[in-house]
Amino acid sequence: MPQNLFPLDSTKPFTDQQVTGHNRWHPDIPPAVTVKPGDEFRADCREWFDGYIRNDDSAEDIRTAPMSKVHALSGPFRVAGAQPGDLLVVDILEVGPIPQETGPLAGQGWGYTGIFAKANGGSFLVDQFPDAYKAVWDFSGRKATSRHVPHVAFTGITHPGLMGTAPSTAMLGKWNTREAALIATDPERVPPLALPPEPRDAVLTTLAGAEHDRVAAEACRTAPPRENGGNMDIKNLTAGSRVFYPVYVDGANLSVGDLHFSQGDGEITFCGAIEMGGFIDLRVDLIKGGMDTYNVHENPVFMPGNTPPQYAEWLAFSGTSVTLDGEQRYLDSQLAYQRACLHAIDFLTTFGYSPEQAYLLLGAAPIEGRFSGVVDIPNSCATVYLPTAIFEFPVAPSADGPVRIDPGIGAPRA
Amino acid sequence: MPQNLFPLDSTKPFTDQQVTGHNRWHPDIPPAVTVKPGDEFRADCREWFDGYIRNDDSAEDIRTAPMSKVHALSGPFRVAGAQPGDLLVVDILEVGPIPQETGPLAGQGWGYTGIFAKANGGSFLVDQFPDAYKAVWDFSGRKATSRHVPHVAFTGITHPGLMGTAPSTAMLGKWNTREAALIATDPERVPPLALPPEPRDAVLTTLAGAEHDRVAAEACRTAPPRENGGNMDIKNLTAGSRVFYPVYVDGANLSVGDLHFSQGDGEITFCGAIEMGGFIDLRVDLIKGGMDTYNVHENPVFMPGNTPPQYAEWLAFSGTSVTLDGEQRYLDSQLAYQRACLHAIDFLTTFGYSPEQAYLLLGAAPIEGRFSGVVDIPNSCATVYLPTAIFEFPVAPSADGPVRIDPGIGAPRA
Amino acid sequence: MPQNLFPLDSTKPFTDQQVTGHNRWHPDIPPAVTVKPGDEFRADCREWFDGYIRNDDSAEDIRTAPMSKVHALSGPFRVAGAQPGDLLVVDILEVGPIPQETGPLAGQGWGYTGIFAKANGGSFLVDQFPDAYKAVWDFSGRKATSRHVPHVAFTGITHPGLMGTAPSTAMLGKWNTREAALIATDPERVPPLALPPEPRDAVLTTLAGAEHDRVAAEACRTAPPRENGGNMDIKNLTAGSRVFYPVYVDGANLSVGDLHFSQGDGEITFCGAIEMGGFIDLRVDLIKGGMDTYNVHENPVFMPGNTPPQYAEWLAFSGTSVTLDGEQRYLDSQLAYQRACLHAIDFLTTFGYSPEQAYLLLGAAPIEGRFSGVVDIPNSCATVYLPTAIFEFPVAPSADGPVRIDPGIGAPRA
Amino acid sequence: MPQNLFPLDSTKPFTDQQVTGHNRWHPDIPPAVTVKPGDEFRADCREWFDGYIRNDDSAEDIRTAPMSKVHALSGPFRVAGAQPGDLLVVDILEVGPIPQETGPLAGQGWGYTGIFAKANGGSFLVDQFPDAYKAVWDFSGRKATSRHVPHVAFTGITHPGLMGTAPSTAMLGKWNTREAALIATDPERVPPLALPPEPRDAVLTTLAGAEHDRVAAEACRTAPPRENGGNMDIKNLTAGSRVFYPVYVDGANLSVGDLHFSQGDGEITFCGAIEMGGFIDLRVDLIKGGMDTYNVHENPVFMPGNTPPQYAEWLAFSGTSVTLDGEQRYLDSQLAYQRACLHAIDFLTTFGYSPEQAYLLLGAAPIEGRFSGVVDIPNSCATVYLPTAIFEFPVAPSADGPVRIDPGIGAPRA
Repeated sequence: MPQNLFPLDSTKPFTDQQVTGHNRWHPDIPPAVTVKPGDEFRADCREWFDGYIRNDDSAEDIRTAPMSKVHALSGPFRVAGAQPGDLLVVDILEVGPIPQETGPLAGQGWGYTGIFAKANGGSFLVDQFPDAYKAVWDFSGRKATSRHVPHVAFTGITHPGLMGTAPSTAMLGKWNTREAALIATDPERVPPLALPPEPRDAVLTTLAGAEHDRVAAEACRTAPPRENGGNMDIKNLTAGSRVFYPVYVDGANLSVGDLHFSQGDGEITFCGAIEMGGFIDLRVDLIKGGMDTYNVHENPVFMPGNTPPQYAEWLAFSGTSVTLDGEQRYLDSQLAYQRACLHAIDFLTTFGYSPEQAYLLLGAAPIEGRFSGVVDIPNSCATVYLPTAIFEFPVAPSADGPVRIDPGIGAPRA
Repeated sequence: MPQNLFPLDSTKPFTDQQVTGHNRWHPDIPPAVTVKPGDEFRADCREWFDGYIRNDDSAEDIRTAPMSKVHALSGPFRVAGAQPGDLLVVDILEVGPIPQETGPLAGQGWGYTGIFAKANGGSFLVDQFPDAYKAVWDFSGRKATSRHVPHVAFTGITHPGLMGTAPSTAMLGKWNTREAALIATDPERVPPLALPPEPRDAVLTTLAGAEHDRVAAEACRTAPPRENGGNMDIKNLTAGSRVFYPVYVDGANLSVGDLHFSQGDGEITFCGAIEMGGFIDLRVDLIKGGMDTYNVHENPVFMPGNTPPQYAEWLAFSGTSVTLDGEQRYLDSQLAYQRACLHAIDFLTTFGYSPEQAYLLLGAAPIEGRFSGVVDIPNSCATVYLPTAIFEFPVAPSADGPVRIDPGIGAPRA
Repeated sequence: MPQNLFPLDSTKPFTDQQVTGHNRWHPDIPPAVTVKPGDEFRADCREWFDGYIRNDDSAEDIRTAPMSKVHALSGPFRVAGAQPGDLLVVDILEVGPIPQETGPLAGQGWGYTGIFAKANGGSFLVDQFPDAYKAVWDFSGRKATSRHVPHVAFTGITHPGLMGTAPSTAMLGKWNTREAALIATDPERVPPLALPPEPRDAVLTTLAGAEHDRVAAEACRTAPPRENGGNMDIKNLTAGSRVFYPVYVDGANLSVGDLHFSQGDGEITFCGAIEMGGFIDLRVDLIKGGMDTYNVHENPVFMPGNTPPQYAEWLAFSGTSVTLDGEQRYLDSQLAYQRACLHAIDFLTTFGYSPEQAYLLLGAAPIEGRFSGVVDIPNSCATVYLPTAIFEFPVAPSADGPVRIDPGIGAPRA
Repeated sequence: MPQNLFPLDSTKPFTDQQVTGHNRWHPDIPPAVTVKPGDEFRADCREWFDGYIRNDDSAEDIRTAPMSKVHALSGPFRVAGAQPGDLLVVDILEVGPIPQETGPLAGQGWGYTGIFAKANGGSFLVDQFPDAYKAVWDFSGRKATSRHVPHVAFTGITHPGLMGTAPSTAMLGKWNTREAALIATDPERVPPLALPPEPRDAVLTTLAGAEHDRVAAEACRTAPPRENGGNMDIKNLTAGSRVFYPVYVDGANLSVGDLHFSQGDGEITFCGAIEMGGFIDLRVDLIKGGMDTYNVHENPVFMPGNTPPQYAEWLAFSGTSVTLDGEQRYLDSQLAYQRACLHAIDFLTTFGYSPEQAYLLLGAAPIEGRFSGVVDIPNSCATVYLPTAIFEFPVAPSADGPVRIDPGIGAPRA
């Protein structure tokens, strides 16, 4: 087990720790820790809402979750010798929940999936699911089960939802400009098209005073993935993965957080994964000048680990880029995937699940979401694959019709 | 080996066979063959351009390929007893190239991948690749290699690109209406937004005379996937797969064609798979009333086979929904996947491939394309995974830099 | 599809074909066909008993199967330029059942598994199963089911049971000497310890007269695997496999036969696989001097194909090297595997199968048999793994106890 | 993380801990801890030699390792309510090395593989490798590398080598009787045929005085696997596995130890796995009366976990039951597997490894060892599969011949 360079006390909030991380992107956020190429180290990570969400049967916390505080990130880790133009090689050695006794925080034996309400960010299927819902998942070893989505059990595909290097000043400017331009096209939209800088609740490691205020006013939010990686929500970044990040600032300034016990492709309920606090063990190295050598100037390249959960039988659903109202869209894979996911939800309700239970399951279980056809004008075809072994009942269609399960207490709503 | 109910003579064009198929969708196309639930049967299939493409080092045929003739489909197969509201269960027992000596037609020991020119339909990356290119792939058992894309070899993920049931009259009307509305938004666009009915070159099994002309004028083109399945281009429909199709007309009227020796997720070069003529063995059955029972009213549900090619190490690229010009788009996964594929192409060129070679490879090899993040406003994150074992050289980034391969004669252009 | 260099007429016995193969090993058996390095070709193969076994509900044919006639092999294929000391590279491009209409011969839509009686060769568990039993398996695409072993269905792991190069004269002498010495230790044993040369029913391609009689008297039987490969019964030699054979005679003289639609590790019922006639497509090449270069002087090296059937959940049984009578043997993995298989059989009978049905299933389905511990004196530990997905009922132990299945007509006995 | 019911202080020997385990099998060894059905708990485990082996470049410790002290086991864990005739269900929730800073003990960032000398137990290939050798493996996340076997790296298949329930008095008597009978056939053999009870160094939890001496005189050694499970060395018992153990005494009295970071099938170097100290998280449950219900009266049944390391390309070697001296043995799979392993070793030496390095690698890496043919008289065929991806160089045979690697300092010998 490597040395913990970013230890966190689970009983304290993000801002009361011995070492403070950050929740915004900016080149001037001071590194919290310095490492060197070849180093292995551990970092503890807060769950993305810093412990706001509780293990209970209410979704009130999901409805009111403070978006201004996310994501509580560990780092930045400065890598000695890293320079713009290098590729930062990051090996994910291990990742897991908080290694302590069962307690009140997500990660201590449990995690959660939330459908965010339209007024608080919404989700992939916000028009069909405008309200807030929550599912709590219990961990037993590598497996998850939920009292809110009964009759399923699956091995988590555990990974960090967010990891990335710091942007340069020029890149930060580019981000702010292009996102502001998008927001300007419909500034009052609910949910918003993008999130502008938000000084309130900004945490910037050691910055204070005027410098804090300047950086907080300029810093980009952490919600979207961007050229530096960031909140990519790639479920395949399990232990054993190697990621190659572009380096934009001296020291690279790597940060990490938003750990997920499991997630389906797309993280479709927005807070779609099984969110948890935990730890991650990393090793860093450099390919000097690698950005030009390999033509990797933006968006990380990666090699997934070789111990993801294995499934051999899948039940799959397809969708095309026609809206629910029957309007034909042109090669819109985002829409096609929404339709495929809605088809999966419609199907699962025939067994007795509520639509929200089915939706929460698709966000949390290791489902595969694929671009199947992207060129056959005017319809994209997207497909979503559910491993049948996660269900405790036979789920394949047959002449016998669906068995009826007891949906239990259902997923709490707020 | 089941009985061949749709035998084709490879030396003759689609319209000169003893049994004629079709290349349009319409409820009034007469069935070519009748089968009953539980039957197993073989159907031969022409490659989608009916033999127009040659095994040579020119892309002239790709540039001039007659889009009005596609897809040359085998069927319809009427399933006795099938009624609207049923689910048609189709087991893909086997699928493969033309089981004959090496000859002049795609499928007889070889197949092809084409990048279509902007003026003839274009492709997923049409703005970056506006011209026509071709790669010929040679088959050796289950493996493919190409003189136009050297230093790679891979086991094909063989499947039918197109399979579906006939639409009802009402559904056909809905298709025509919604697609016409889309076309009307930019009728002169090149490539077009969608393809309207095209009576020229329409083949409609036994229809002739006025009835042929009426149906040809109304029938939908086969390019896009729709509620009935159709041209879904799902690479995972390998031998051993089971597909559940909605039934919209008496007899279901199943058709199949567009066989692919292999394909990457998205079929991104448009004629992106390795196209071939061949055969497919099917078994059909019914779940009476299954559309309501399982809430499957459109877009097939399926269970992939369990003998796809296995790979354990992948090199993956990511993209977000920002255009190459730097414009921020809102959760556009289609764009994010384009960017991920462009990153993969940029990377592969550092080894010595031309961009076109890399693009053709991504269309043909069993790459995975996943929706990784679809909710993190404003950026979707899409990822594309290349199995490293298909390359005859080490392809992972390292401090040594890329080895340089000899790209050979390259991919012919027209 | 490569050219068929060894075509067989399924309606005729092995000895009445236009080209005759062989059923013994000897360096002086004349090659049937000559190929050259790089060639791809097809060979038809008779099932190992040349069509003696019938698709019926009697095991009389298994009880009386003529062991002197096996194995009906296709070849030898002389590879031009091959010399002793080379490694012969054989790619298995494809392998499958007889590509014709359903008919009377194994391979034409069906195959069989037999438990051989003690008086006719016996099997792995001969003391527990001294009588003859048979199960007929029906093929549907890549899947097998049986009226004699109901409630299971599995994708076959199709492969040649026997492939090998010709021995040199010296090697043949060595085989005969060492096997005669073994037989001499207990010459009356039933079943025998080994099979000496048997001139009766020997088929030696074109040999006739005195030369035939000389070779027939010296030639080794094909039952055991030996330095040249031969009857290795390696279930993993599926399509896509590459095998490196030592070359002992000029031309290598490769022969192949004993095709299996499927088999479990060990082929434990003796005629344990699903036996069939069929075809195999091969490509041959040479590594000149490869035996010394790679230290491969006996027993082939191989690389399995990458499209075997995939299973992700297994139910496994263990055994150690203690006899059923309680005698402790010293690190006897053969015994440990017998005990593991017996445990699997005992377990499966609690669901309603007869012991013979369970035994036949273990011989035919793609079970894994592993050496788990071979050093922990005095007990070896062997393990056998059954994929749970082959059963149509839940097979894992639980507090509910086993469901009871209807064993149907059972496996016929003779 | 479940509660640690068997905490160990890594700085202290097995006998100086707050809770003491045992290193012999006997029904009268008092349970160390009591749990109840449904409980999840952690147990720390000493490495099997209790810290005797050092991280250095000498094999002196392997040569002199005190066999009388093994295996240092954690437990027994009494399961309330368990009675003879029940099946004890044990879920392996997690297993890993000592979760602490890098230190002097195996498990703290490193582990070891040893070839035992003939005079101290020997190994699978003792005649070819009569001396002691050692390889130290360094852990980085889930991967292992070794300065003693360079140019390989692999993901460990981490599991407990030994887990089992306590024998009844009758069963203990049976073990002692049958093993004594075996020893009596050659009592002076080196290495011995089996190990009789050894009071010296016996640790029996809380037993002391006369009762300790009585039990120590009767108790069976832990080296061999037996009816109760025990030292099965099944590499597939990774996290996520479920094991069903027969219960022979009230409370079941489950014990566990001998953790392996990785192992190849057979654990062929005797101390063949990568040995380490660490922890294991378990959940226990009961199937009352399950031994009769499921016909499981001896030797555990198990279902492996679904996150083992994945490999898709394998290089395999075969062997038959002929001795190196050319003597034909009758269906001896133990011998056939020895020959297959020797072939793999011979092959790997052509790249530059010493035979000992190759042998140590086969013991430690996740190789597969299969019973391929066990019925083809007189030869068994065994096969061993090496994942090619563990090598940093191309390992498949080709016309180019083997690359030559630098074997480094080699494996130390004593």
